[in-house]
Amino acid sequence: MNNKITDIIKEYPDIVRAKKPLIHHITNYVTVNDCANITLAAGASPVMADDPEEAEDIVSLAAALVINMGTLNKRTIESMIKAGKAAKKKNIPVIFDPVGAGAGTFRNETADRILNEVKPSVLKGNVSEILFISGVSAGAKGVDVSDDDKNINEDIIREKVMKLAADTGCIVAATGEKDIISDGKRVIYVENGHKMMSDITGTGCMTTSLTAVFCSISNDLLLGTAAGIMCMGLAGERAFALAGQYGSGSFRTALLDEVYKISHGIIGENTKIFEG
Amino acid sequence: MNNKITDIIKEYPDIVRAKKPLIHHITNYVTVNDCANITLAAGASPVMADDPEEAEDIVSLAAALVINMGTLNKRTIESMIKAGKAAKKKNIPVIFDPVGAGAGTFRNETADRILNEVKPSVLKGNVSEILFISGVSAGAKGVDVSDDDKNINEDIIREKVMKLAADTGCIVAATGEKDIISDGKRVIYVENGHKMMSDITGTGCMTTSLTAVFCSISNDLLLGTAAGIMCMGLAGERAFALAGQYGSGSFRTALLDEVYKISHGIIGENTKIFEG
Amino acid sequence: MNNKITDIIKEYPDIVRAKKPLIHHITNYVTVNDCANITLAAGASPVMADDPEEAEDIVSLAAALVINMGTLNKRTIESMIKAGKAAKKKNIPVIFDPVGAGAGTFRNETADRILNEVKPSVLKGNVSEILFISGVSAGAKGVDVSDDDKNINEDIIREKVMKLAADTGCIVAATGEKDIISDGKRVIYVENGHKMMSDITGTGCMTTSLTAVFCSISNDLLLGTAAGIMCMGLAGERAFALAGQYGSGSFRTALLDEVYKISHGIIGENTKIFEG
Repeated sequence: MNNKITDIIKEYPDIVRAKKPLIHHITNYVTVNDCANITLAAGASPVMADDPEEAEDIVSLAAALVINMGTLNKRTIESMIKAGKAAKKKNIPVIFDPVGAGAGTFRNETADRILNEVKPSVLKGNVSEILFISGVSAGAKGVDVSDDDKNINEDIIREKVMKLAADTGCIVAATGEKDIISDGKRVIYVENGHKMMSDITGTGCMTTSLTAVFCSISNDLLLGTAAGIMCMGLAGERAFALAGQYGSGSFRTALLDEVYKISHGIIGENTKIFEG
Repeated sequence: MNNKITDIIKEYPDIVRAKKPLIHHITNYVTVNDCANITLAAGASPVMADDPEEAEDIVSLAAALVINMGTLNKRTIESMIKAGKAAKKKNIPVIFDPVGAGAGTFRNETADRILNEVKPSVLKGNVSEILFISGVSAGAKGVDVSDDDKNINEDIIREKVMKLAADTGCIVAATGEKDIISDGKRVIYVENGHKMMSDITGTGCMTTSLTAVFCSISNDLLLGTAAGIMCMGLAGERAFALAGQYGSGSFRTALLDEVYKISHGIIGENTKIFEG
Repeated sequence: MNNKITDIIKEYPDIVRAKKPLIHHITNYVTVNDCANITLAAGASPVMADDPEEAEDIVSLAAALVINMGTLNKRTIESMIKAGKAAKKKNIPVIFDPVGAGAGTFRNETADRILNEVKPSVLKGNVSEILFISGVSAGAKGVDVSDDDKNINEDIIREKVMKLAADTGCIVAATGEKDIISDGKRVIYVENGHKMMSDITGTGCMTTSLTAVFCSISNDLLLGTAAGIMCMGLAGERAFALAGQYGSGSFRTALLDEVYKISHGIIGENTKIFEG
């Protein structure tokens, strides 16, 4: 199974570079530069217009839409809903990252609205965020996975991810030490990644951007999502090997380097991706 | 000619470092950090205040104003207009980068408003944006140069740039493989640059910032603009030679390094700048 | 004295890494990514939610709040006031960085409002900003220390810092070549740092974030503030030694690396921190 999935997704980077898909992001102001750079490193083209006045115009030019709720306000929420609905109408995949879901009413209600009104194609969050949305009381603290959630049994997460996917019609991905991705029927695990990735900001957001890049050129959004998550994890492993010893600044630079290299052809080596 | 222009602009970095001009930016939230760092690397001082409440106060302290419409909203458009008018009244050069012009009505109307109400000193965009503003139907896709526009004959671009400069009274610069800059009468070509610059976000925005830096200390805005564009292109070549092989993260770091070094004295070597 | 202070603060990094305190920032869009990364490098966890709708909810989860007025608007000012008041009510330390105070009425009035309505725990600015708030006419130009203020006698700054601390009840820190920190009675000097730190954006903002990190785990906010300022200065010295020769891009990467390394255990060497 591993080989079969890897055989398919290892073609993705070349397709991306050939098509240079436009990836529209409505995202947070903390990691927006990182998201733009990772999108370019993967061979796609980012656009970050976030005003309601142009949300629909811009998304109509795009091959995928990222909705990332890292920093929210009334103006950008309106853009997210408008762009999201317009994208869905045109069959443009919508990748939703419910950053910080569980951290407060405003954020929780916004996640609900986006899920209900936009009906994203892919819902990708960390374990705490996905468990919170699943209705499991999660001990979310800010935007990182809580320590409690790190110890939740993998089979429980698998069950919640599958159910949430079946209930919402989204591809659902819960990232953690082992990433679990499902369309409600199939489940894919990704075991690439390195713990130093949580020592810099934006690795979650960048993973979402890569997911959008690969979903923009694949008809199989389950595989597109797995490819995005795997690509970032693999880059993290490689970046740690090259630069981890120097500190988080060098690691951050190396991470972008490694996505760039992977997108120029070496995907397929050292992938840890399994269907199960 | 080449030597004459180079002889003049090679003095610019020292003048910048001696004066440390304040460069006010009203710009996008994607590359604002890159713009601040490149401004500092060139020896100037950036300030990014973008609220209408203080736009006029802040610009009155500045030696140049950048208006970059990468990400727009009602609040920042109002600031752009207010600060732009105040700058013009005080003879502070206004450098306008119409990012994404052609990508939708909101953006197109805003570019029109800024051109008509502010009457910028310099209009600097990529070929797609400048051709769109010239009334040539451009196939703009997001914020990058479209493939169609990459193949437009250089003489046509030259003609459009000269006419737009004559019509608007702006120095007009269209960046591409060969950059073309005109005040309506003279034309300057810059051939420095490297294609890897389009693999990271913000190289266009940073070029605009450098243009503002050099325009802030020069009485000849045509040369100030050429110097800014040339400096970025030269840094791109040097950064590629040093770090291109490692990927886009290392290239990005090297690009800032090389602008820093150029601004500390090595401008004048390997410049490819021609009047013609 | 030096040894005594160093003995206490050298324990801080380990405490931070053990507790992973959440540091809520309401800050500017220029350096927000740098602030998030430096917070993570120090072993804490950043959250940057800046909307009034959630300011109180988010700060109630936090161990410290940064209010940084680098880029202001009506919406974020409201969030700053709301979050600041909520934090104070819950005894969460509030670190206020009055970026650009002195550069215009909007900024000056906002600094006043925050000082009066929030009553921050720590007020940390550069010499120009602190002198302006002290009522000394400062020649602030944008967001950097003015040349005039660089030449002000150290004893005068000391006196103003002590008086401002006594008058406001804040720990007051004025950063410059020599940093001066006081609670109104005691005065601590920090002499770590390197002038290349002013060649990149965000070193002041990142210092404020580190101050918040250390204040979040210390009962002695005077020492917490000194530790934050010292840690950044020490990282600057080390980054310059390693990477300064390559330019400001490499220096910027090295600065994050060095904070990461210091926070993993080497604080205590080469600290230049004195009570006097």
